[in-house]
Amino acid sequence: MNGGEYPSPEAVQTVATVGTGVIGAGWTAHFLRMGYDVVAWDPGPGAADRLAAFIGSAWPVLERLGLHPAASPDRLRFAGSLAEAAGGAEFIQESAPEILDVKVALLAELDAATPGDVVISSSTSGFMMSDMAARAGTPGRFVVGHPFNPPYLIPLVEIVGGRRTDGAAVAWAEKFYTHTGKVCLTMEHEVPGFVGNRLQEALWREALHMIDSGEATVQQIDDAITYGPGLRWAQMGPMLTFHLAGGQGGMAHMLDHFGPALLEPWTRLDAPELTPRLRDLVVNGVGESVGEVTVQELEQRRDEFLADLLLLREKHRRA
Amino acid sequence: MNGGEYPSPEAVQTVATVGTGVIGAGWTAHFLRMGYDVVAWDPGPGAADRLAAFIGSAWPVLERLGLHPAASPDRLRFAGSLAEAAGGAEFIQESAPEILDVKVALLAELDAATPGDVVISSSTSGFMMSDMAARAGTPGRFVVGHPFNPPYLIPLVEIVGGRRTDGAAVAWAEKFYTHTGKVCLTMEHEVPGFVGNRLQEALWREALHMIDSGEATVQQIDDAITYGPGLRWAQMGPMLTFHLAGGQGGMAHMLDHFGPALLEPWTRLDAPELTPRLRDLVVNGVGESVGEVTVQELEQRRDEFLADLLLLREKHRRA
Repeated sequence: MNGGEYPSPEAVQTVATVGTGVIGAGWTAHFLRMGYDVVAWDPGPGAADRLAAFIGSAWPVLERLGLHPAASPDRLRFAGSLAEAAGGAEFIQESAPEILDVKVALLAELDAATPGDVVISSSTSGFMMSDMAARAGTPGRFVVGHPFNPPYLIPLVEIVGGRRTDGAAVAWAEKFYTHTGKVCLTMEHEVPGFVGNRLQEALWREALHMIDSGEATVQQIDDAITYGPGLRWAQMGPMLTFHLAGGQGGMAHMLDHFGPALLEPWTRLDAPELTPRLRDLVVNGVGESVGEVTVQELEQRRDEFLADLLLLREKHRRA
Repeated sequence: MNGGEYPSPEAVQTVATVGTGVIGAGWTAHFLRMGYDVVAWDPGPGAADRLAAFIGSAWPVLERLGLHPAASPDRLRFAGSLAEAAGGAEFIQESAPEILDVKVALLAELDAATPGDVVISSSTSGFMMSDMAARAGTPGRFVVGHPFNPPYLIPLVEIVGGRRTDGAAVAWAEKFYTHTGKVCLTMEHEVPGFVGNRLQEALWREALHMIDSGEATVQQIDDAITYGPGLRWAQMGPMLTFHLAGGQGGMAHMLDHFGPALLEPWTRLDAPELTPRLRDLVVNGVGESVGEVTVQELEQRRDEFLADLLLLREKHRRA
């Protein structure tokens, strides 16, 4: 299998969603919003009714964001079997429970039921495709496409192949997801937990430690984020945020000035040594990221956005 | 010194900001917005002009958020000396460079120059007040009031005393900051790095490690947050976010189902053991936090907010 054999990502008309729990139902809503025919399958009792109810309740918010002209909740069909769902689709999004044995068996079954030129993507939040596709006969077309909940509202999808995945399948998935309006973060190598997940997991683990040791309550953890750094992260990531903490000197000043704080025991996560190489990687990376935009311009954009965000939150609190 | 001797937090009319870098200038803007007379002091050359220019450029966004009826940028005065700034103020916010020796010397000097019934708060992002007030003659009135940048837009302030701080001074600071529109997270004991800071520091360190090891670029780190979990954190903290990842079963289902993932090497931060005690602390904490609100209602509020947030970001991108 090579890149030339996959059909055009723009030509896909039918998507299968396999597994329709929180994540699979969210993907189903996303693909329906984007104008696809979606064939869903889930072996759980009552899954078809739950999915229909879910789509119905998500639809108004999707309408508000904007629907593809061809989008309709009526383009959802619940299949009677995995083979029926997989057989007629041009792309498959798998969102089964996060149990490795289940994923391995399911991916092998999907592989057998799916035409050979169809890319199959897994929503796994941390397994490596090298492990999950272990029993698949056509491992080249299997990729990870890891979303963030809810997949119909959070744009990010993390894409990575396994050891035996074709580069062309990874490239195909990136093009396809982008075409459906997602923002892709494509990894060149398998990173356990991917990128966004690793970051949120570090925060989650520190939070659990603080609750465990009595340093903070659940409410304090959540308040600390939603009234604090969480507001900034809706617009600027941690790197750009600290670029602005350095004042006019930006990230270079920040690292040269606050670098020693990395030695403080501010979290249970050991800090990397701030070598000149790492310092330059970060400073140059921020430079590429911001281009010609000055710290002052970034501050102004941040302030304009944060003011609107605070007013928006106030509106939702009152509602 | 006891609580009865501090004047009413609501009666404060004049605030001194000592140190007017990024954080001190931000505090100055906040107190001016809230209708105070502010006396600023900073020994740096050109500091008075820089501060005036900063307030001028921040003012339009503060007007948009809403000013206290008495607020005016004209109520800012730049003092000629530390003693002049400290002598006439009823509250002091110190935002000197983050160097322990500098803080220790400055706090001792401030202590000597400030009337005894005035609470003095430090913006330190991680030093303990027990260490910083080491040479102060009146240690009882010293607290940490740690803001997040920019202090005039991010509501959170983390409050904690040192070993020799009066409980009444901590309570006074909480009342005063709340009166000025801040959201307070008050700690009972000194926690190095406080709460919000520890959380963002865990994320920052994981990001530095990933850049160091070539697992992600600066741009990928920032995109992973701003197109992913960062959007959610503008409204819901990590605990409530994972409450919704558990579907209708909420946090209990999440921990019982995904708990084993804590053993995965998804970040460099070791996970705590998910003991029954920790599990119950988290589940019950979420229960207290959400009260009678169901998962479905929370999902709906989240979706309504996220849709507006996405539209808001789109508007700012186009601008």
